[in-house]
Amino acid sequence: MRYFHFCKLPGRVMGIRLLRFTSVVIIVLLLVAGALTALLPSIKDDKLPNLRREPKPQSQSALDSFTLIMQTYNRTDLLLKLLNHYQAIPNLHKVIVVWNNIGEKTPEEMWNSLGPHPVPVVFKVQSVNRMRNRLQNFPELETKAVLMMDDDTLVSAHDLAFAFSVWQQFPEHIVGFVPRKHISTPSGVYSYGSFELQNPGFGNGDQYSMVLIGAAFFHSGYLEDFQRQPEAVYALIDETQNCDDIAMNFLVAKHTGKPSGVFVKPVDIRNLEKDTNSGYSGMWHRAEHLLQRSYCVNKLVNIYDGMPLKYSNIMISQFGFPNYANHKNKM
Amino acid sequence: MRYFHFCKLPGRVMGIRLLRFTSVVIIVLLLVAGALTALLPSIKDDKLPNLRREPKPQSQSALDSFTLIMQTYNRTDLLLKLLNHYQAIPNLHKVIVVWNNIGEKTPEEMWNSLGPHPVPVVFKVQSVNRMRNRLQNFPELETKAVLMMDDDTLVSAHDLAFAFSVWQQFPEHIVGFVPRKHISTPSGVYSYGSFELQNPGFGNGDQYSMVLIGAAFFHSGYLEDFQRQPEAVYALIDETQNCDDIAMNFLVAKHTGKPSGVFVKPVDIRNLEKDTNSGYSGMWHRAEHLLQRSYCVNKLVNIYDGMPLKYSNIMISQFGFPNYANHKNKM
Repeated sequence: MRYFHFCKLPGRVMGIRLLRFTSVVIIVLLLVAGALTALLPSIKDDKLPNLRREPKPQSQSALDSFTLIMQTYNRTDLLLKLLNHYQAIPNLHKVIVVWNNIGEKTPEEMWNSLGPHPVPVVFKVQSVNRMRNRLQNFPELETKAVLMMDDDTLVSAHDLAFAFSVWQQFPEHIVGFVPRKHISTPSGVYSYGSFELQNPGFGNGDQYSMVLIGAAFFHSGYLEDFQRQPEAVYALIDETQNCDDIAMNFLVAKHTGKPSGVFVKPVDIRNLEKDTNSGYSGMWHRAEHLLQRSYCVNKLVNIYDGMPLKYSNIMISQFGFPNYANHKNKM
Repeated sequence: MRYFHFCKLPGRVMGIRLLRFTSVVIIVLLLVAGALTALLPSIKDDKLPNLRREPKPQSQSALDSFTLIMQTYNRTDLLLKLLNHYQAIPNLHKVIVVWNNIGEKTPEEMWNSLGPHPVPVVFKVQSVNRMRNRLQNFPELETKAVLMMDDDTLVSAHDLAFAFSVWQQFPEHIVGFVPRKHISTPSGVYSYGSFELQNPGFGNGDQYSMVLIGAAFFHSGYLEDFQRQPEAVYALIDETQNCDDIAMNFLVAKHTGKPSGVFVKPVDIRNLEKDTNSGYSGMWHRAEHLLQRSYCVNKLVNIYDGMPLKYSNIMISQFGFPNYANHKNKM
């Protein structure tokens, strides 16, 4: 009996030690594994060095094509003209019309009655007439590439096809046809403008620091990013009904640390404003339009606590392409 | 005694189990650690996504500047003219003259007697007159960027300054002023040429698949890579005294998987050949010159077991730069 009693004791002691030792080793194992896992590159870094994750799972065609997003207000006749023009451009996947005519019926019925059409056209009826309505991350958007066009601007199919091929090589940039720039003044206040402005002491040629999204390709991931901006940015855009395109350039420049845009020299781009029967002329005719835009640049610098915009002097055109006779040179 | 004897036995057994268990856990620990470590990105992938390691440790100025490499044969008067022109271009770090006048004295003494000069000029006396002498990884080369110029070509300082800024944005490409292309024929044989050739069924505009290194910027790491090519490549270049530039485009296209070159539209580029007193005219005047180049393309496809060259239709020019009156458009 007694030695039985004795003999069981060491066994139990050993069992407890074994238990303790095991748990210690397992904890070490977990710690090491954890530490090493932390060193692994995140999938984001791996798969998309410069861009946020894809908005949605995408078909192959959705990768080789783009979605046209066009916001319209008070110019339905122009809208229909432009829809007829753009519905046949190469690589177009879908058209999303952002309908800012609050309370008005869309021309969807008439549009469908005149079908068939090459690609689907979706009318997104809005409840408030906001400039930034076009910058939503629309669920109907299935492509990586977005082509955003103002509802009064006509760009040739050739220019669009070439610019899309350029965007495919620079998917993290806004690739478009209308460059603009900011300049800094000795007072530290920024001014917004175009070729008429020049940074002091800058030499030959010109520079741009923005490419307007009213005639440009950009990655749909940036629409997602736009939903995560400071409230003050939305307030600024709504207050001015302006500057959503400047805000997008700030966003892209901050995201890439590079110039936000790549300027593709258009061969044929036209403003159709005068063709509308509504007599409505774009908001950029308002006396305060340009002043507002300089105001926005300075506001955005405050909101983002710095000036992310960078200058570029690269102008891309198609090698060996013979310019049209009716070439309209925006530069 | 007896129960002592009894009592030690279980203890020993426990000790052995403990030992076994420990070693098993340690092995598992090592395996997990090893597996996770294998998943870590290699430093190379991390630090230089697209380019081989730097040739040498570099000063800051060596990073913001470039080295001009000019090979000369039988046109010393032109060489001196070009040296005087290029020695004052912005961001020039050093000039390396590859002296292919075998047995002839270099003009170094005279050059120095007319000093001071803004940057050092190094004469590299060669023992054999070879086209590919200029493609050595010269120990005097301290910059990442190389500007290679033929000894009969004058490019404006403005064009060079702009092209250098473009190269800084595309350091893995050959950034230059003279685009060329290959075309494939139904027989499977490739042909070399310029704007006079067109791929069957290709639409608007033109394409290029090479940018010649006789007037171009490229990364000095590619000179290092050139030393590691198959012997057959050197044999082909020496046999023809031609095609070293085509070989470089193959090398870069293979390395990047992209088009080898980026074409910058020159505003003012001139050929000074007729200005030489030697009466010597460049090798590209030889009747067989172009035929040789098509021959080289097909040979290189065999050597590299495939056609790495890719097409681009991007032409870059400086935004807002007013073209010279004396603009000579190479396109």
